[in-house]
Amino acid sequence: MKIGKNTIPRTAICTSDEDTIIVRGHDLCLDLIGKVSFTEHFYLLLTGKRPTPAALAVLDATLVAIAEHGLVPSVQASRMTLAAAPDALQGAVAAGILGCGSVILGASETAGHLFNEVDAKVRAGATLGDAALAVVRAWRESRRAIAGYGHPQHKRRDPRVDALFAVAREQAIDLTYVAIAEAVERAIPQVIGKDLKLNVSAAIPAVLLGIGFPVQSLRGVPILARAAGLIAHLQEELESPIGFALSYQASRDVEYSGTLPEGVTLKPV
Amino acid sequence: MKIGKNTIPRTAICTSDEDTIIVRGHDLCLDLIGKVSFTEHFYLLLTGKRPTPAALAVLDATLVAIAEHGLVPSVQASRMTLAAAPDALQGAVAAGILGCGSVILGASETAGHLFNEVDAKVRAGATLGDAALAVVRAWRESRRAIAGYGHPQHKRRDPRVDALFAVAREQAIDLTYVAIAEAVERAIPQVIGKDLKLNVSAAIPAVLLGIGFPVQSLRGVPILARAAGLIAHLQEELESPIGFALSYQASRDVEYSGTLPEGVTLKPV
Amino acid sequence: MKIGKNTIPRTAICTSDEDTIIVRGHDLCLDLIGKVSFTEHFYLLLTGKRPTPAALAVLDATLVAIAEHGLVPSVQASRMTLAAAPDALQGAVAAGILGCGSVILGASETAGHLFNEVDAKVRAGATLGDAALAVVRAWRESRRAIAGYGHPQHKRRDPRVDALFAVAREQAIDLTYVAIAEAVERAIPQVIGKDLKLNVSAAIPAVLLGIGFPVQSLRGVPILARAAGLIAHLQEELESPIGFALSYQASRDVEYSGTLPEGVTLKPV
Amino acid sequence: MKIGKNTIPRTAICTSDEDTIIVRGHDLCLDLIGKVSFTEHFYLLLTGKRPTPAALAVLDATLVAIAEHGLVPSVQASRMTLAAAPDALQGAVAAGILGCGSVILGASETAGHLFNEVDAKVRAGATLGDAALAVVRAWRESRRAIAGYGHPQHKRRDPRVDALFAVAREQAIDLTYVAIAEAVERAIPQVIGKDLKLNVSAAIPAVLLGIGFPVQSLRGVPILARAAGLIAHLQEELESPIGFALSYQASRDVEYSGTLPEGVTLKPV
Repeated sequence: MKIGKNTIPRTAICTSDEDTIIVRGHDLCLDLIGKVSFTEHFYLLLTGKRPTPAALAVLDATLVAIAEHGLVPSVQASRMTLAAAPDALQGAVAAGILGCGSVILGASETAGHLFNEVDAKVRAGATLGDAALAVVRAWRESRRAIAGYGHPQHKRRDPRVDALFAVAREQAIDLTYVAIAEAVERAIPQVIGKDLKLNVSAAIPAVLLGIGFPVQSLRGVPILARAAGLIAHLQEELESPIGFALSYQASRDVEYSGTLPEGVTLKPV
Repeated sequence: MKIGKNTIPRTAICTSDEDTIIVRGHDLCLDLIGKVSFTEHFYLLLTGKRPTPAALAVLDATLVAIAEHGLVPSVQASRMTLAAAPDALQGAVAAGILGCGSVILGASETAGHLFNEVDAKVRAGATLGDAALAVVRAWRESRRAIAGYGHPQHKRRDPRVDALFAVAREQAIDLTYVAIAEAVERAIPQVIGKDLKLNVSAAIPAVLLGIGFPVQSLRGVPILARAAGLIAHLQEELESPIGFALSYQASRDVEYSGTLPEGVTLKPV
Repeated sequence: MKIGKNTIPRTAICTSDEDTIIVRGHDLCLDLIGKVSFTEHFYLLLTGKRPTPAALAVLDATLVAIAEHGLVPSVQASRMTLAAAPDALQGAVAAGILGCGSVILGASETAGHLFNEVDAKVRAGATLGDAALAVVRAWRESRRAIAGYGHPQHKRRDPRVDALFAVAREQAIDLTYVAIAEAVERAIPQVIGKDLKLNVSAAIPAVLLGIGFPVQSLRGVPILARAAGLIAHLQEELESPIGFALSYQASRDVEYSGTLPEGVTLKPV
Repeated sequence: MKIGKNTIPRTAICTSDEDTIIVRGHDLCLDLIGKVSFTEHFYLLLTGKRPTPAALAVLDATLVAIAEHGLVPSVQASRMTLAAAPDALQGAVAAGILGCGSVILGASETAGHLFNEVDAKVRAGATLGDAALAVVRAWRESRRAIAGYGHPQHKRRDPRVDALFAVAREQAIDLTYVAIAEAVERAIPQVIGKDLKLNVSAAIPAVLLGIGFPVQSLRGVPILARAAGLIAHLQEELESPIGFALSYQASRDVEYSGTLPEGVTLKPV
């Protein structure tokens, strides 16, 4: 079935013949394998360009920062999935990645869009503080969540934020978006009435937009990073299974809020 | 519901409090972010140990080698999925990862198990050639596929094989499994009657087992690597969509082999 | 980690002890197995109530209508996934379901929300025609897609539409939303300038809202229905594989729009 | 890339033109919508044939039996996924389906293969008791799990077993596989030393093989059934979220079994 007008598929990422594989204009076997790190390769795949050393350092730092944070919901979902389907590692990784949605790891992308709106106002002449305040207010009024601020565990500032900002400063990248992220942090209490501090999901776009990383691909960074963390958890699950124990704990105190048929009582578990 | 005996979940990968995140015994924010590359971090997450420089170089080389090979089936599945569900990038990545199964990218793990069997025979006193021949024969007889040999496009040797072996030699890692992989390549024509050459899926375990990478996690390497390739393709799909064009081309010449109700004829498409 | 305030999980769907399983207040083994059809059970699971005979007939009709439409993109993605990972049927089903997104099968839900907006205007006193026109105009202006109208193959009216509307009339359900769906169909040419006819994705909410089906669950109907179609396709894939043939056809004429390293030419495939 | 020899895709499930959609040789809009139940349609899609009334009743009974059993691991994984990615219902359904693996819901297929082996021995002349004993012994020796026997909660017999067998008897279907399932139940204590009773995953193939349901598609029944249960849970999750509460409970008592950097102590949560 023909959906849309375009019928000839085109791609600029890769082509090959029997003896040669070209990735983004480079000979994979001659110029890339053994010559570039996986992070460099990811940047090249995504943008078509080699990263500068500073861009590479910042991208590596964000991938390291967001790869792992213990038994978060997506890791639990992934380990439970492997416990139930142990012969399909790829399925358990996929289940974990499906939890990289708008609320949790997708927050990076949302925060990136918010920062771009602030940036546009500044370029149009507003002060940074006014721009941040106006954008936070507008998002709040249209009931869009201010993603990337506040953290259930790290109530002061998420410690990954300063670590990432330190890398950005060391590498002397464009700090515009770091400044925007902090201006938004200052604006939030005035608009929302709560002192929600920067978390890692806002720090990631703050530093990545400073190296020219495409805003629509921001969600790709936590997804790739979490894939690494998930694979480690699944390796541990194969050796020391806890998937079913997690599920047992989760449902131990569950309350049934429905009805029972007349005359039926259940034995307590 | 209690499934199995273990009810207390334990993990050695990560713990945290409000101000500190510990990953594999290291302070994430002080010792890892900005200090290690993403590949180093992946190795640490998975094995609990820092890689040697040689191990790091080899792991990076395998991730770069397997990340991308054009519009393979899993990339097509992923791009079609994004075309249909453009607001869920994570779903399209997951769909692509679900194609990292036993036939395609899971071949790395299967080949790793085969190499371990050859290695066990050599340690028990067999010559390498005899051991390879015996294992290939035994797998063939029990109808297990000899994964990692032969490639639909790279009929001579997959060019990624020599590139990976060159890195292994440069880094002076244990070449035992490289020798095993080549012995298996020599054994195959005698057993199977076809000259199936090494492909990248066998070259990956050949070099990774030489750095002590756990065999059960071998499938994790192509999964992580492909996640990077998929994210690049999905970024391209957002900019220059071809998901529906691929689907149109795929089904253009489809033949309906079922029946039609009496008297019904369909108009040609 | 505590995310949000609620820490005690509650559910009204199911509870059990060693000898009894209660589903939505009914004893599964005494009152449901062998007593209700799967569609009745689905309605009960979802809404907590037994369907009327008319509601059951309409729900069955929608599930039958949307289960299968040949080698659409999500079916192709699913069959390619099984070809690559044949031992994980659940992964191939999941890959197909991931294509039930906003553009393709999620259109049912979007159309349902659009119909509810028209309904609200009519209840507030507008004529049906004015209400439909106003809502289509408002969606168009805010660049929200008018989902459920127009079809790449069924340019006149998707034949499933009249079949579903006929069932709705036979069963004498509330036809309010059928009327709304047709009013929107008449409004579209005036606003969009194209005569986009009703397709199955708008017909589904048009009849299901008339039986009181919850609007947020509308996407569940195509997802459940497509699961049935996908399982049939995967059974066929196991017997007569075409996953790789689809992929071959899809990429046969692909054009590489990137660059080649200097001096490199590739052999034509 | 051409993988395998077949390059022309063929399918016998569905074809269509602008005005007509043919499913398994029937006109979808004239002969199926409003005329058959969803379960009948599923049977037709899968097998190409209309079910007998008895086959339909049995298939409905199995789908009802396995659709829902409370907050099992795959439901928890699905609800956690929706909590994290609330705008992608299809992703949460997919995550839940990925848990339909060999250990949990895939057991139906495995048990079906085991029953077929017993059946083959009986056809070759063995008594039912001897055949069951021999097959259980052979599976045990080759360390294949005897799927479908024993249940973490239903230690006596899973109540769904007798409910399904009662439907099979009422419908007067071929009871060969029911007898085999019970013979295997009697054989297990002699081989395994534990009195593992039939559970629903063995009862499903016991009755479905008696209506000629294809053994390779057995896993499709729990997958389709669970899709219905998952959609109900996700609807409840949208109204009364517990995904994060489940995750909190699951990880509340988690023990970190790794090391801490020297001198570091963490505050208790």
